[in-house]
Amino acid sequence: MRASQYFISTLKEAPNEAELPSHKLMLRAGMIKRIASGIYTWMPLGLRVLRKVEAVVRSEMEAAGSVELFMPAVQPAELWQESGRWEKYETGLMLRIKDRHDRDFCFGPTHEEIITDIARKEINSYKQLPKNFFQIQTKFRDETRPRFGVMRAREFIMKDAYSFHADFDSLVDTYGRMYQAYSNVFSRLGLKYRAVAADTGAIGGTGSHEFQVLADSGEDLIAYCPDSDFAANIELAEAVAPAGGRPASAEPLARVATPKVKTIDELVAFLSVDIRRTVKAVVVESEDGAPVLMLVRGDHTLNEVKAEKVAGIKTPLTFASPDAIRAAFGAGPGSLGPVGFSGRVIADRTVAAMADMITGGNEDEVHLTGVNFGRDCPEPEVADIRNIVAGDPSPCGKGQLAICRGIEVGHIFQLRTRYAEPMGCTFLNREGKQQTMEMGCYGIGVSRVVAAAIEQNYDERGIIFTDAMAPFTVVIVPMGYGRSDTVRAAADDLYRQFSEAGVDVLLDDRDERPGVLLADSELIGIPHRVVIGDRGLKEGQVEYQGRRDSEASPVPLAGVVAHIRSRLGA
Amino acid sequence: MRASQYFISTLKEAPNEAELPSHKLMLRAGMIKRIASGIYTWMPLGLRVLRKVEAVVRSEMEAAGSVELFMPAVQPAELWQESGRWEKYETGLMLRIKDRHDRDFCFGPTHEEIITDIARKEINSYKQLPKNFFQIQTKFRDETRPRFGVMRAREFIMKDAYSFHADFDSLVDTYGRMYQAYSNVFSRLGLKYRAVAADTGAIGGTGSHEFQVLADSGEDLIAYCPDSDFAANIELAEAVAPAGGRPASAEPLARVATPKVKTIDELVAFLSVDIRRTVKAVVVESEDGAPVLMLVRGDHTLNEVKAEKVAGIKTPLTFASPDAIRAAFGAGPGSLGPVGFSGRVIADRTVAAMADMITGGNEDEVHLTGVNFGRDCPEPEVADIRNIVAGDPSPCGKGQLAICRGIEVGHIFQLRTRYAEPMGCTFLNREGKQQTMEMGCYGIGVSRVVAAAIEQNYDERGIIFTDAMAPFTVVIVPMGYGRSDTVRAAADDLYRQFSEAGVDVLLDDRDERPGVLLADSELIGIPHRVVIGDRGLKEGQVEYQGRRDSEASPVPLAGVVAHIRSRLGA
Repeated sequence: MRASQYFISTLKEAPNEAELPSHKLMLRAGMIKRIASGIYTWMPLGLRVLRKVEAVVRSEMEAAGSVELFMPAVQPAELWQESGRWEKYETGLMLRIKDRHDRDFCFGPTHEEIITDIARKEINSYKQLPKNFFQIQTKFRDETRPRFGVMRAREFIMKDAYSFHADFDSLVDTYGRMYQAYSNVFSRLGLKYRAVAADTGAIGGTGSHEFQVLADSGEDLIAYCPDSDFAANIELAEAVAPAGGRPASAEPLARVATPKVKTIDELVAFLSVDIRRTVKAVVVESEDGAPVLMLVRGDHTLNEVKAEKVAGIKTPLTFASPDAIRAAFGAGPGSLGPVGFSGRVIADRTVAAMADMITGGNEDEVHLTGVNFGRDCPEPEVADIRNIVAGDPSPCGKGQLAICRGIEVGHIFQLRTRYAEPMGCTFLNREGKQQTMEMGCYGIGVSRVVAAAIEQNYDERGIIFTDAMAPFTVVIVPMGYGRSDTVRAAADDLYRQFSEAGVDVLLDDRDERPGVLLADSELIGIPHRVVIGDRGLKEGQVEYQGRRDSEASPVPLAGVVAHIRSRLGA
Repeated sequence: MRASQYFISTLKEAPNEAELPSHKLMLRAGMIKRIASGIYTWMPLGLRVLRKVEAVVRSEMEAAGSVELFMPAVQPAELWQESGRWEKYETGLMLRIKDRHDRDFCFGPTHEEIITDIARKEINSYKQLPKNFFQIQTKFRDETRPRFGVMRAREFIMKDAYSFHADFDSLVDTYGRMYQAYSNVFSRLGLKYRAVAADTGAIGGTGSHEFQVLADSGEDLIAYCPDSDFAANIELAEAVAPAGGRPASAEPLARVATPKVKTIDELVAFLSVDIRRTVKAVVVESEDGAPVLMLVRGDHTLNEVKAEKVAGIKTPLTFASPDAIRAAFGAGPGSLGPVGFSGRVIADRTVAAMADMITGGNEDEVHLTGVNFGRDCPEPEVADIRNIVAGDPSPCGKGQLAICRGIEVGHIFQLRTRYAEPMGCTFLNREGKQQTMEMGCYGIGVSRVVAAAIEQNYDERGIIFTDAMAPFTVVIVPMGYGRSDTVRAAADDLYRQFSEAGVDVLLDDRDERPGVLLADSELIGIPHRVVIGDRGLKEGQVEYQGRRDSEASPVPLAGVVAHIRSRLGA
């Protein structure tokens, strides 16, 4: 492509609306243009990047046996009423529409209902199963506060896939293929990412992984093991028991007056002890309303999602009132502990492995030291009820957990029969009986991938695209295309050579100052740059610079195509 | 692609909803699936065809210098209010939406407002002009009675392009390039089409051509010259004067009583004369309300669009009342003529070249024969005010007009400043002054092209796709893939050979009866079919049949790839 015949429109400064680096850089590079809140035009340069992402996604989906189709953007309410989501769908996020006949529709925020309708009409027999369909489609979610550009736009582009199965084993098999296909997609795009075990949330079903592109600006916290591929949403990551088990007790039980001490920090300061010797107590209600004491180490925090999952605990998790606590323990919330409490006690795995603990004394402004389970109070129930912290042993057994931030760009779910059941999506099984299909669904936020990649890869000069995502792989920057016949001839010839070699090349033949051309090529993030000037040409040389290189290096004009092709692995 | 890993779902009978052949066939072939009125899913086979059309459109647009971008589907009302179309846009066709903040949006039926907004912000100088942008996008028009499947769906896919210019000459130049690009698109797709001079209609502006795919089921009537590329909407085609001019008069003026004769047919029967000797009279109002007599030959019809364009005629065209006619002519509408009428008389070009005419006598139940202009009444004004008929001389001067039906699949417009003016889309010209841009717009109904192609190309067995549009170019049909090792091995090997040769091949390895496989391949319209059976293989032969061939012919297995590639011109 010749820049003079293309459309490049960069900005020196990003508009004030932009907060995130990716948003600023996409606006400055002229990749997107705001039309309304959360609604953008993909300008030519941005669209090229989007299309490259789409192409990688499409090829991996097809390689994994998924068949592409294209469902409508506008969906009738009737199908959503069948699945029970018309009223419920994440309140307000659905853009509802009435047509000229006053019938209800929505601009599809997702397509489970449509594909399930298709499957129940098209698939009748176990012989037709499994089937996996995907599409790349514009979707709309009417966010209250759209922001961060295409990272959280209202109108966005998604690849969504849906699989149908005769049984759960088949679903698990396809789920595994999709997991691998997603890994291939993000690897091919050159992104640092993690597949993270995730909660299934509102979409329903069981079994789910999020694919997170690692970036400091990410909204999600991820616990991962640097020594394996283990990763989990920090809310869900398992806190395993410390190695070695519980040490022997060495201290007698002792009562300590702790005047005015209400918090763990105050306790640690007052006693001058290591916080890891203290135990924090929280009282929640059981299903029948009785108080249940939950214990985590002083420097740990209760994980409410985990706590709620303990058998017999009231859902949603309900903290006991101060009055109920005083009635049960004889003390306020700042001085609670297991000694003398006759109710149910649940200790986190770390607490269960402690000896000589410092706990509340169940008496205001009194604590106990040298507390030991089995000696001073009964052995507690043990459960994983805390949030993990960096340095915890990884559940994979291969190292210690680290914590990083990520941007969710993909999500795979085992939906099971969440939609097939209410919508009557059944098939005739081998025994000739009607049976409900198992379903999976698999999404990639295609437009968000572009923003996430930039969050992960930029510097003070602009975007840094990988070869796989760059709008152009190579840019030729002639110093004086309109001035010097020699430069123009060399640039045109090089352009022809790259084009013939099948390399996606931009010849920046715009009538702009060299500084503008160089700055634009860096802002736009083109991975490979060849600068051609009269001085170098006298020696038969041009300057090559990779986008991450700190400086340019001279390369013979005659060898520069081969030089770059070797770097592309082509 | 292996059919067993793909999704082929054909129907023996089309649902009752379908009227047009293309609609029936697309449903039967499993190319589309109805989700709601005028809203369809593009099933895998249909999507492949759609994508092939898109690819041809994209490549010709790019070759013509248009740059692709992607505008949002959901558009804010503000921009439509600026252009003045928010209230006016073809009443009701716009799907209006309110977001959660109760702001007005629409699902874009077209994108003039968005692109004009982009151009006014991005293009400041004559140096940046001309520019031509295109997109391939889902659009929505809320038709009252959507029908004919994707031919007139509510949700549909369009390629729309918009060009911006410093002056009208530049617009005309780009308009010509787009005309050529469109011609290339439809030629490459292998369609019989005509570029038709068209009225500019509601979209505004001047200069416009429709691209019509010729098909008997088309809604539009087209006048064309078989001996040139002349074509026009029948409403707009020029009726030229007959060659040779007016013959000399040979008859005296005579008065004939014509009792009970009210119509031309009755007159012709009563007098036993050639209808081409008679003249029909119509009275319309001038701008000041006076009656104006318009004359067309007895077998011709008045073209109201043309009549309205005659200088001084009231707009919209208004026919005089029976009372006004009697007051001016002294007779009723069945017996009118120019002799004795002192008002304005406008003769069609054909009438102006007639001698010895038979006209009304301006007296009830009386006609005149041997009427001659200049002798019996003054020479009339002459204008093109009639509809053309087949056999008329073509305005191109190269033959006679024929009439056919067409389906509009493309439309190019010179918008001029229809949008740029109200929206303030200006640039700094060479003299440093603000000037309004000239604009063109260029649309192709991508999804409609698929239906139109089928209307033009089908038979009793199903769809007949051209190589360029077919979902697969070649289908291999093994007779007993699951039964015969020999057949399977030969089919697999052939499949590999086609794939390696870059031919888009379908191996129909489904476990179905041979009759089903053969019928499906014809219904789906795959242009080239290779049938492999045990009997032929013994002789080293397979059967080749082109979709339009009446029967199969034996071809050596070893030569079939080369045989088909030569037919593909590959």
